[in-house]
Amino acid sequence: MTLRQLSARARVSLGYISEIERGHKEASSELLASLCSALDLPLSRLLGEVTDSVAAHERRTAQVASLPAVPARTGEPVPSAA
Amino acid sequence: MTLRQLSARARVSLGYISEIERGHKEASSELLASLCSALDLPLSRLLGEVTDSVAAHERRTAQVASLPAVPARTGEPVPSAA
Repeated sequence: MTLRQLSARARVSLGYISEIERGHKEASSELLASLCSALDLPLSRLLGEVTDSVAAHERRTAQVASLPAVPARTGEPVPSAA
Repeated sequence: MTLRQLSARARVSLGYISEIERGHKEASSELLASLCSALDLPLSRLLGEVTDSVAAHERRTAQVASLPAVPARTGEPVPSAA
């Protein structure tokens, strides 16, 4: 399916889909449902993938937060590439 | 935690939380993250519950759609309660 076909099937303008793709606009729940329906994708599957992705991000963030603090070394020159 | 405390911790007005609760406003992802953080609730857990709830709704809708059509009986009086 082309973006143009998706736009027509979901009744969402090409410009708006593009804004959502680039993270400039947030899709409302109605819009998500409409795009999922046009893509024959159950909304629960999209939400499940978002849930997994957010959970993975939370695990990474928790790991970083639990790392021991490394004392900053000051006064040493940054090695040059030369 | 009271609603007032949640409002202060999440920096979301009481009125806005109330609008979201009643389904009059949709919470943006930033707002959801802020409310979850104030509630010490991982965003992934909230999303997981929404995913389960949407999946259950999809299953119910699919069951209704697959029910055999019952031919309407016409011309018969509706039994009265008397």
